[in-house]
Amino acid sequence: MTRILAIDPGSRITGFGIIDVDVRGKIKYVNSGCIRLPDEALSIRLKNIYLNVQTLFSDYHPDEFAIEEVFLAKNANSALKLGQARGAAIVVAALNDLFIHEYSAKRVKQSVVGNGGADKLQVQQMVQLLLSLDKSPQADAADALAIALCHAHTRTAAGLEYGTGKRALRNSGKRWTELDVRKIK
Amino acid sequence: MTRILAIDPGSRITGFGIIDVDVRGKIKYVNSGCIRLPDEALSIRLKNIYLNVQTLFSDYHPDEFAIEEVFLAKNANSALKLGQARGAAIVVAALNDLFIHEYSAKRVKQSVVGNGGADKLQVQQMVQLLLSLDKSPQADAADALAIALCHAHTRTAAGLEYGTGKRALRNSGKRWTELDVRKIK
Repeated sequence: MTRILAIDPGSRITGFGIIDVDVRGKIKYVNSGCIRLPDEALSIRLKNIYLNVQTLFSDYHPDEFAIEEVFLAKNANSALKLGQARGAAIVVAALNDLFIHEYSAKRVKQSVVGNGGADKLQVQQMVQLLLSLDKSPQADAADALAIALCHAHTRTAAGLEYGTGKRALRNSGKRWTELDVRKIK
Repeated sequence: MTRILAIDPGSRITGFGIIDVDVRGKIKYVNSGCIRLPDEALSIRLKNIYLNVQTLFSDYHPDEFAIEEVFLAKNANSALKLGQARGAAIVVAALNDLFIHEYSAKRVKQSVVGNGGADKLQVQQMVQLLLSLDKSPQADAADALAIALCHAHTRTAAGLEYGTGKRALRNSGKRWTELDVRKIK
């Protein structure tokens, strides 16, 4: 059984979705929701993302981590803000020795709806259907669950060895960079 | 005595500079250098930034944190990468309850060289002069030291109350966002 945490970070709302997938590709819903950022200073907002994602790691112990790949951000300024939110979320996965699996929005929709151009509502409905949920998940939570489903489908199709487990990254994490400090006084 | 840590994050090299400034605005060099990121997966690179910045906090206990404000990133893709690196660095300051002081490159150059259009070499030379360094700091370290100097000048000019201390942010940090999880199964 592999537990997948997927995150859909935004500068205001970060969705998350957690699913379990077994060796035969059978998928079980675990939890989903979102982190709503307060209208506060940047540091408080990034701290919120970091600590809430860390809480997800502590509470659910995911084995694999997936996130939406960003293409064609609207403009450089919004890309920077999104990047900062992503950085605060991804670094938690990195500190927990997980590889970052990235999937384009098109690929996520293709995988979940069967149509790379599907709209948000179609994604929500298919996520509800695929995970047998009683209610439709909140939009950002549904996006995160769709990313998790895309990762589950991809890793099952590719065989069990696809998911880069903790061990692989923990070893490569030894390639460490020392602070480069030269005595200049 | 207030200790300032300034960071100049990049997707490949992150410079850092640490200075002390006393109540009369007298400045003392503490340390500087850079974090060189290995050519590795995103998660390993962000982990490197995070852990190295965390090491700086543990070793030097800065009271205030400054960073360059980003304007006109070359394009959305480079802004995203830069944002991720910034997010991984800023979140360390945030977790240590420090406010993020941001200064534009123009303002940093104006403050250090007296000319908002100064080139990198002029910044390096003035940083060396102002901090009485025996050698010229590495370019990214010099940029970070220039940001720290700009913050020191700004806070001294604005009076002692300018620097947002830990206490202020620790209180505002109580405005916490709970994970928004609704039962959908």
